[in-house]
Amino acid sequence: MIEINNKVDYIFYTNNTPNTYKIKLMFHELEKKHAITFESRIIDITKKENYSDEFIKINPNKKVPAIIDQTGEKPFIVFESVSILIYLAQKYSSIFLPDFKTNPLENSEVITWAIWQAANLGPAFGQYFHFSFFSPTVQEYSLHRFNNEAQRILRLLDDRLSVSPYIGGKEYSIADIASAGWLLYLNFAPIYNANKDRFPNLFKWLDLINQRDAVKQVNEAIKERFGAFNTSPLRSLFTNDPDLINAKAPIGIENVVLKYD
Amino acid sequence: MIEINNKVDYIFYTNNTPNTYKIKLMFHELEKKHAITFESRIIDITKKENYSDEFIKINPNKKVPAIIDQTGEKPFIVFESVSILIYLAQKYSSIFLPDFKTNPLENSEVITWAIWQAANLGPAFGQYFHFSFFSPTVQEYSLHRFNNEAQRILRLLDDRLSVSPYIGGKEYSIADIASAGWLLYLNFAPIYNANKDRFPNLFKWLDLINQRDAVKQVNEAIKERFGAFNTSPLRSLFTNDPDLINAKAPIGIENVVLKYD
Ligand SMILES: N[C@@H](CCC(=O)N[C@@H](CS)C(=O)NCC(=O)O)C(=O)O
Ligand SMILES: N[C@@H](CCC(=O)N[C@@H](CS)C(=O)NCC(=O)O)C(=O)O
Repeated sequence: MIEINNKVDYIFYTNNTPNTYKIKLMFHELEKKHAITFESRIIDITKKENYSDEFIKINPNKKVPAIIDQTGEKPFIVFESVSILIYLAQKYSSIFLPDFKTNPLENSEVITWAIWQAANLGPAFGQYFHFSFFSPTVQEYSLHRFNNEAQRILRLLDDRLSVSPYIGGKEYSIADIASAGWLLYLNFAPIYNANKDRFPNLFKWLDLINQRDAVKQVNEAIKERFGAFNTSPLRSLFTNDPDLINAKAPIGIENVVLKYD
Repeated sequence: MIEINNKVDYIFYTNNTPNTYKIKLMFHELEKKHAITFESRIIDITKKENYSDEFIKINPNKKVPAIIDQTGEKPFIVFESVSILIYLAQKYSSIFLPDFKTNPLENSEVITWAIWQAANLGPAFGQYFHFSFFSPTVQEYSLHRFNNEAQRILRLLDDRLSVSPYIGGKEYSIADIASAGWLLYLNFAPIYNANKDRFPNLFKWLDLINQRDAVKQVNEAIKERFGAFNTSPLRSLFTNDPDLINAKAPIGIENVVLKYD
């Protein structure tokens, strides 16, 4: 049974991972600008809580994030992080998403780059993480495949940010928020071998958005979790072999030399 | 140089593949309901035409589909198939996408399922195709991984269609169009080992949408291409070895037994 807490506007199902940080970023902005309230509920995917009967009623896709909007007549559920961003943006008078009626082209540009994140950056980075950290043994072909795709995406974003201050155009928007969920991690570690020298425009953008209060709050959360990062609980979803689970990285990965540029 | 043809409303960059059929489906509906005109231009990805300087100016993500809208003051480019669908739906008075102002919950439900397609079904089916047909040699771990994910997605859609006549809700919408780009192929071949017995609700939905004129036009196009389907040109993007290129399927795939349910 879903426990209703009518004292808050939104219930937020999260587990403090990239796709859920997008929604945390948005909620912290809305807290300040529209005085919304929300309660976070952790769904531990290493314990398969996302497969529980209760959670499947909230998100049939069995993933976090998902939200319940309790501000209307009936509770209303939204899942898919970028759909949640579009819903909230439209609800709060086009915050971070220009209105289609008055600014159709700006609206479309932001939506394009937000969906680009959902369909390209998210899946590619997710697979790169899987093959770099969570697959029980190294899968050389696939590790190269998804590293190449991650590099392509970072290069594309760096090019985009050389001609546009923000990912979706002239203003901070849900397109930035969508990518930030994944890219704020670069404040703490050079994942994907990314750094200022290789991707100067991307890191300039990171410096720019790091100044926002909501981004600072999410950076704090990432920093805290980062110290405790351990790949074993997630790897245990893919193998029962304790030696493979307890390894620091996929067995065999030390022999793979990845290509950058 | 992009050649402008001002005689049509839209230029449509396509290559007759799943993500581009979404836009073909939408344009054929709009032809009838709003008398729009469009010109299709083929971008041959087996010849890497999507990497040309000219095409990168249209889509920095180097993929089809993309469109140029020539109906406004200046030509306007949109890429990412689901963003194109949202743009066109909003432009033509909320066709296949309820208006947020008057129907916020219905709008959000359709957007959720359209983005769910872009972020889940599309990437998973794309990887499943890669590892089933285009990887030069078999990659057993990854073939299982993406087959499992494709099966999960088909099961989820079948469950969804047991409680809802259309994917996005009570009416035909861009959520159906987004998934149809990939699923109309099931009219011609049991890809993913999908059939009426295993996924009865999915095939009922297929029968339902197959009755639409625009869907019939796309089915004709798929049928025509299907007869000539040859995996070698695409496999040649991933290897130079003529033996691997000319094989009918990834070498070694005959030894893999995939799991269904
Ligand atoms: N496209 C989805 C992706 C969500 C997603 O992959 N969430 C991860 C955590 S960041 C998850 O719940 N994984 C659990 C699983 O896939 O079993 C979105 O953007 O919301
Ligand atoms: N998320 C994109 C995916 C587009 C896509 O993958 N297009 C394929 C053809 S169906 C393509 O252009 N592939 C060429 C390549 O990736 O190099 C969309 O929905 O528009």
